[in-house]
Parts: sequence; structure tokens; C-alpha cells
Amino acid sequence: MADLKSAFLKVYSQLKSELLQDPAFEFTDDSRQWVERMLDYNVPGGKLNRGLSVIDSYRLLKEGKELTEDEIFLASALGWCIEWLQAYFLVLDDIMDNSHTRRGQPCWFRVLKVGLIAVNDGVLLRNHICRILKNHFRGKPYYVDLLDLFNEVEFQTASGQMIDLITTLEGEKDLSKYSLSQHRRIVQYKTAYYSFYLPVACALVMSGENLDNHVDVKNILVDMGIYFQVQDDYLDCFGDPETIGKIGTDIEDFKCSWLVVKALEICNEEQKNVLYENYGKPDPVNVAEVKALYDELNLKGVFAEYESKSYEKLITSIEAHPSKAVQAVLKSFLAKIYKRQK
Amino acid sequence: MADLKSAFLKVYSQLKSELLQDPAFEFTDDSRQWVERMLDYNVPGGKLNRGLSVIDSYRLLKEGKELTEDEIFLASALGWCIEWLQAYFLVLDDIMDNSHTRRGQPCWFRVLKVGLIAVNDGVLLRNHICRILKNHFRGKPYYVDLLDLFNEVEFQTASGQMIDLITTLEGEKDLSKYSLSQHRRIVQYKTAYYSFYLPVACALVMSGENLDNHVDVKNILVDMGIYFQVQDDYLDCFGDPETIGKIGTDIEDFKCSWLVVKALEICNEEQKNVLYENYGKPDPVNVAEVKALYDELNLKGVFAEYESKSYEKLITSIEAHPSKAVQAVLKSFLAKIYKRQK
Repeated sequence: MADLKSAFLKVYSQLKSELLQDPAFEFTDDSRQWVERMLDYNVPGGKLNRGLSVIDSYRLLKEGKELTEDEIFLASALGWCIEWLQAYFLVLDDIMDNSHTRRGQPCWFRVLKVGLIAVNDGVLLRNHICRILKNHFRGKPYYVDLLDLFNEVEFQTASGQMIDLITTLEGEKDLSKYSLSQHRRIVQYKTAYYSFYLPVACALVMSGENLDNHVDVKNILVDMGIYFQVQDDYLDCFGDPETIGKIGTDIEDFKCSWLVVKALEICNEEQKNVLYENYGKPDPVNVAEVKALYDELNLKGVFAEYESKSYEKLITSIEAHPSKAVQAVLKSFLAKIYKRQK
Repeated sequence: MADLKSAFLKVYSQLKSELLQDPAFEFTDDSRQWVERMLDYNVPGGKLNRGLSVIDSYRLLKEGKELTEDEIFLASALGWCIEWLQAYFLVLDDIMDNSHTRRGQPCWFRVLKVGLIAVNDGVLLRNHICRILKNHFRGKPYYVDLLDLFNEVEFQTASGQMIDLITTLEGEKDLSKYSLSQHRRIVQYKTAYYSFYLPVACALVMSGENLDNHVDVKNILVDMGIYFQVQDDYLDCFGDPETIGKIGTDIEDFKCSWLVVKALEICNEEQKNVLYENYGKPDPVNVAEVKALYDELNLKGVFAEYESKSYEKLITSIEAHPSKAVQAVLKSFLAKIYKRQK
């Protein structure tokens, strides 16, 4: 595993040095240094799960055949494109959310002398994806499918981000806008497509598959992405801060969390008033009221029920798929997240 | 002309309504209204020169053959893609520059309840280009060339914006970083590719041309774009505010203008000190000192000389081109900007 990761990081170094020599632009020393620092700060510092899973998925699709060095490189390059996409979203999201830290360091726009130049850096990160794809896939028969795929997923993610932003519009704190269907919509578009569907879709395209024939795979992965985000929402409130590595603030931040929409769904009028009066306020007293209500409604139990139902449903859908190799890819994803504590 | 523009605006309405029904995203009423208002606010309000010139150029390349309705629609759609690209850059640039007005109205991010959601709106504008291209060009043999073209030009523009931003980094006001070659580099990447090369390149691609065979056309258009920006810099200081529709503030804003880099090139040590002491300061006394120096250095005369030399050079390059149709396209562009007063 450590080996896989260090091989993957080597590909990062190569892709970065190609970008810093891109013949489509005449770099100055200053601008080359700027881009290099910006990439190192924002791209490789995460868990790299999305990127690594392209290689895993491709390997499983090949059903045990040894991958060539070239195949490993190309699958890694696609994995890095997803990591670049993620970096692009995070750099811009942190600006929009006015966040402070990310991956244990100050958000990029908070770094000295960066500020709102970070907006343009986000744009550059997005453009690098196209440069990487052009450098390494321009001659492949599936090149145009890769461009379409990344474009569509980016569009869906930005659209999900839009509904999230306009639903949580500062100053319009209105719980009546929150519902399970709205939660599902935000999560599906903002997170599930790029985090779950995109890595597998990349592996399928590289294997020569036409994505139009894999709508069922897409649907399963989107459902898995939604399940993953529900876990995230649950852990934000009920997880162990030591284990998840942060202290959740979804209640204070008026987040459209699965917990609050579930609570709204099952509560009575009196309990609803408690939510309306206490949700989205920074005072610990208000937060405690909300948490007490969550306990009263037994949201831990409701979640446990949701978790096992989701798992059964996903397994049933996966086992209905005609290809054993595709089943293996999907099961491997599910195994990584089922009952996770962080 | 008014007819051409109203036909062009009709295509905007069609493209917009397709985007608002995009099957890749489930719109809510709120989000559909948001996108529609955002588009109407940011996309069609400019002079539309870049967009309209795709149709003009395509017509000239067809050498008098009547265009079909379908050809007019497709050329218009490509024209609108450039207007969308421009809107995307302007929405984000205004945030980064902390600007106040644009096209006679408050910048989008200054509109009530928009704020930094404008960052995501910029991203959506960029994504719309791919949606439009996919909707109308997916089956064309040149579809992938269009994607590559827009991707490359966007990358070059963002790279130009980067060197502009890091050269003018707030708090690091250092005139020694400004030079003619730096000015040229910023203008070439930030403005010339998307404003001058891209419209003609779109028309060439639609005519079935391979852009690799038109590097000379690219070079001429880039030179024309640089000449255009030098005019812009000149008019900012010496143009009639009534005619150009704004009061220039390049001197106050420490802009890397052609005038200041030319002044730095031809001045003596004493004059250089005047520039270092007065450039980039908001006080009218400092601005007046800079303007007096520009007069002393006869920058009006230097510009007139530059203008006629540029014109001659461009005409010579254009007339060396083997195709009369391409010559006509390039001459039409040049005629629109030569000796412009606004």
C-alpha cells in the first residue's frame, strides 16, 4: 500500500514538471515558482482515495491480468486528474465558505500574498486537467469521452454547489427549505458524481467501455456516494472527534445535514419549534438543545437502521450486475466505507 | 447591423433555455431562476464584438457563398461560447480586482445576496460552454478540436491573468518588474488569444480547417491583440472620457500599462525617479506629475509612431498570406480597430 502510494506520488511529480514546462505558455521564473508552490500546497496533501481508486478499479476490471507500466501510468494520471479537480473545488469552496483550515494547514487564500489570487489559481487547477489529458490521451480513441466525462461531472458538481449555496444563503436561515429530497439532491450533485462515479467511470473508459452502457453502475455509485455523505453528516455530530480528526460544527453552521432533515421529517410540532429556535446558532446552549432533541428522536437508531438498509440495497443492486469484474469494483468501494468510523 | 445583432440575441435566448432544461442536472425552481438571472446579468450586456466576429469571419471564409440557416446558428453558438467565456473571466476578475462597476451596473458579486457565490457562478459560466458545445457540435468531425481550442485558450488567458496578478501584487509596488517584454507577455496571454485569435479560430475550425496549419494567422491576430491593448492603455490616459465612456485610472492603480513601460524605457535617471515617486498613488498631484512626464517624453508622438508602424507591419504580414479569404478576415479585424478613438 505504501508502495502504491509512493508510485502514485511519483506520477504527480512527473505531471507537475510537464505542466511547468507547458509550451502553450511562456513562464517567467516568478510564475513557474508560483504555480509549483500552489500545486504542492493544494493537490497532493489529501488522502488520495479518489485518485488511487482509479488504479484499483482498473486493475479489477482487468480481472487479474498484470497491468503494463504504461497502463499503470495512465490510470495514475487519470487518478491525479480527479485529485486536481478536487483541489480546484476545495480552493474555491474555502473562499466561498470563508473557511480557515484545510487538511491541517491554512486555506490557500489565507496564505500571505495569495488572497483572492486563489480564485485564478482555482481556474488554473481546472485547466491543468485538460493539459494533462491532452498530453497523455490526445491520441487515444476514448480521448473525447474523457473530456466529456470530466466536463459533465464538473458541471454537476458546480450545480450541486449552487443549490447548496442558495439553500444556505446567509441571512435567509429558513429550515422550511430543508428536506430529505433537497439533501439528496445536493449530495448527489455536489459530492457523489465526482467522488464515487468519476473514478470508476475513468477506469471504465480506459478499459474501452462506452459509459452509455453503464447507467446502472452510475446509479449504484451515486447511491453509494449519498450513503457516504449521510455517514459524514452522522459522524459530524456523533463521531469521536479524536478519530475523525475534527470537531463537527454542522449544527452551528446551519448545514443541510441528513440529521436535521431526518429530524424534521419525524418530529412533532413541539419538537419542530425546538429545531427552528436552536438550529444554526453558535451558542453551545442552542447546540445542546438540538443534540438533546436528536437523542429524544433516537437518531442514532434511525441511522443504524438507514445504514443496514442502504447496505442491503446496495449489495442487491451490485449482485444484479451481469459482470463479475464490475461487481468486484463496486464491492471494493462499498467495503471501504461500510460502517466506517472516520 | 441591428438585424444581425437581434438575430444573434435570439440565439442567446435559445441557448439559455436549453441550459435551463439541461438533463444532466435536476433544477429546482430557485436554482433555475438563479441561473437565468445570473446569465441575463452577465452574458449579453457587452458590445458582443467577439461573438459577432465569429459569424463575420465565417462568412468571409465562405467567400460570398450564402450561409445556410444552420451555419448561421452554429457560428452564432460559437460566438456565444466566446461571450460566455468573457463573462466567466469578467465575473471572476471583478472579484479579484475588487471592482465596483462593469458595463454600467454593479459588478455581479456586489449584487445583494450574491457575494462570493459569484465564484461558483463563474465556474457555471465556464461549464455552460462545454454544455453548448456538446448540445450542438457533439456529432461534428471537429468537435474535439473545438474542445481543445477552448481549453487551450482558457489556459492561456488564466496564465496571463496569473502573471498580471503576481506582477501587480498589492504591497509589492515595484516598477522594476515592469518592462515592454513583461507588458507584451501579459497582454498576449491575458487578452489577445481569447479576444482576437479565438473568434477567427472558431470560424476556421467550423470551415473544416486544421488549426495546426494556421500558426501564421494566430501570430498575426496575437500581434493585433497586442496593438489593440496598447491603444487601450493609450486611451486610458489620453482618450476623451466622454468618448471612451470612463475615466482612466491606470496611473493610480499601478497598472502595467504600455505608457509606463515605454516611459521607463526612454527616460533618464532623473525622470525615472519621478516615475518611481509618483506612479501608483491615488493623489491627483502624483497623477499630474506622471502625466507631465508623459508629455515631456512626448508619449503621444511615440504612440503615433508605434501605431503607424504596427499598422504597416500587420498589413505586410496579412498580404503575405496565401489565401485571399483569410486576408479578408484579418483586414476586416484590423479595419475595426485602426486609429480607434474608443
